[in-house]
Amino acid sequence: MPDRRSAFFISDRTGITAESLGHTLLTQFDTVEFRRETVPFIDTVEKATQLAERIRQCAEQEHFRPLVFTSIIDPAIRQIFKIETALTIDFFESFIGELENELGRSASLSVGRAHGMVDEKNYDTRIEAVNFSLNHDDGVKLKDLAEADVILVGVSRSGKTPTCLYLALQYGIKAANYPLTPEDLDAPTLPKMLLPYRNKLFGLTIDPQRLHSIRSERRPDSRYASIENCRFEVNEAESMFRHHAVPFISTTHKSIEEIATTIIHKATLERRF
Amino acid sequence: MPDRRSAFFISDRTGITAESLGHTLLTQFDTVEFRRETVPFIDTVEKATQLAERIRQCAEQEHFRPLVFTSIIDPAIRQIFKIETALTIDFFESFIGELENELGRSASLSVGRAHGMVDEKNYDTRIEAVNFSLNHDDGVKLKDLAEADVILVGVSRSGKTPTCLYLALQYGIKAANYPLTPEDLDAPTLPKMLLPYRNKLFGLTIDPQRLHSIRSERRPDSRYASIENCRFEVNEAESMFRHHAVPFISTTHKSIEEIATTIIHKATLERRF
Repeated sequence: MPDRRSAFFISDRTGITAESLGHTLLTQFDTVEFRRETVPFIDTVEKATQLAERIRQCAEQEHFRPLVFTSIIDPAIRQIFKIETALTIDFFESFIGELENELGRSASLSVGRAHGMVDEKNYDTRIEAVNFSLNHDDGVKLKDLAEADVILVGVSRSGKTPTCLYLALQYGIKAANYPLTPEDLDAPTLPKMLLPYRNKLFGLTIDPQRLHSIRSERRPDSRYASIENCRFEVNEAESMFRHHAVPFISTTHKSIEEIATTIIHKATLERRF
Repeated sequence: MPDRRSAFFISDRTGITAESLGHTLLTQFDTVEFRRETVPFIDTVEKATQLAERIRQCAEQEHFRPLVFTSIIDPAIRQIFKIETALTIDFFESFIGELENELGRSASLSVGRAHGMVDEKNYDTRIEAVNFSLNHDDGVKLKDLAEADVILVGVSRSGKTPTCLYLALQYGIKAANYPLTPEDLDAPTLPKMLLPYRNKLFGLTIDPQRLHSIRSERRPDSRYASIENCRFEVNEAESMFRHHAVPFISTTHKSIEEIATTIIHKATLERRF
């Protein structure tokens, strides 16, 4: 039986930073079973004191010491999570002194800048990119392709839509979505609409077996979902990408984060915020 | 003139963790201007050596030492970024020893678990939630409301759509989107469709001035965008929320991350992965 530990990710804001690094660290201990709890918006001494009390109780009831990961800016609140019966890892405190030294000035200790709304312009950029993705999801217009930062090309269900949305939400990047139809795949050239935008194209491909399984969820026993047709479409799409030097990646064993960051990296896209 | 520093966020995978904590730390020094560069997928000694060389050149050419934030699991690769002419902050190394001690075992040193595709089930959960959001974005069906984990209610352009998509992409949560129409706002009760799902409702509101400015971008000089109408709609929506004890938050000064995590927290939603 594996060990079982409680792990708390505590933040004065969203908890995204504490979770992100905390999870990365814990995935290195796969023989331990963690009960994970994220507690965002711990921004007063009172909330912190209550939570610390709960962690102390948890420490008393459980066999092992809880792990506490904090990303909290206010030193008075951070202090409250130095609990003798828990292991506390303080992401902020660990590095801020070193940075203060290097930069020759004190930290401003202002909360809420990282995932807060820094300015309305950033927000508007993201929303505009999200709306861009949504508006043309049902069919591509030439105007959209002209306006896009990148055009994702691939067969149906290769992962284009979630990737476009992720690029828009996380990075404000306008990603258009061009689904390769059976007619496109039969033709020897790139789809005509795409010709003026060759340098914006990025291909997505997928293992035919996985595609077959995804499509079967939607339309079981259809020609569309059949393994033969999936093999054919993927083959044709990949040879189109190769023939026209369109960069492409396989989405099969990748998370949406990995697909999106790989595209940004390989296509050297500029993030909008 | 503010100081200017280069800051590198380096990772063996997507770079999301290194960026997340790195940015949080740097926002504390707002009198320094940072040139930020994220370099993902540094997963071989060769790539690391090339990048370290580039950082050394940058150090020679610039007045101040570059800052290097790394989240890299392989100790041999991490080692390469200990550059005498830069300040390196190694997120992984800083904590992994302490965790190994506490947990009484060695880190498995396996790369790519945090934002990698842990299993296909997680991926499918996210895609299903994204498709759920997309499918009913043009109009709500009763079936969707029954299936939803949470139903976001608010006037047009109060932030429902991006929040639904973020909840789906980041947390696999199925969020339905119910736009309050002028008819809904005139009625003294909750919209009829929503009555069976009262406990799933979460309201979004927004400052009328901000709403006016967002709507004016889309339909300038319309009644829809007029400040009087925006004030009326927001007022009616808020009194509906209060009257029927629907929890609600203002999206005005919040980022999408903050809106989403606040909803999860207040509505005690369960993340799907």
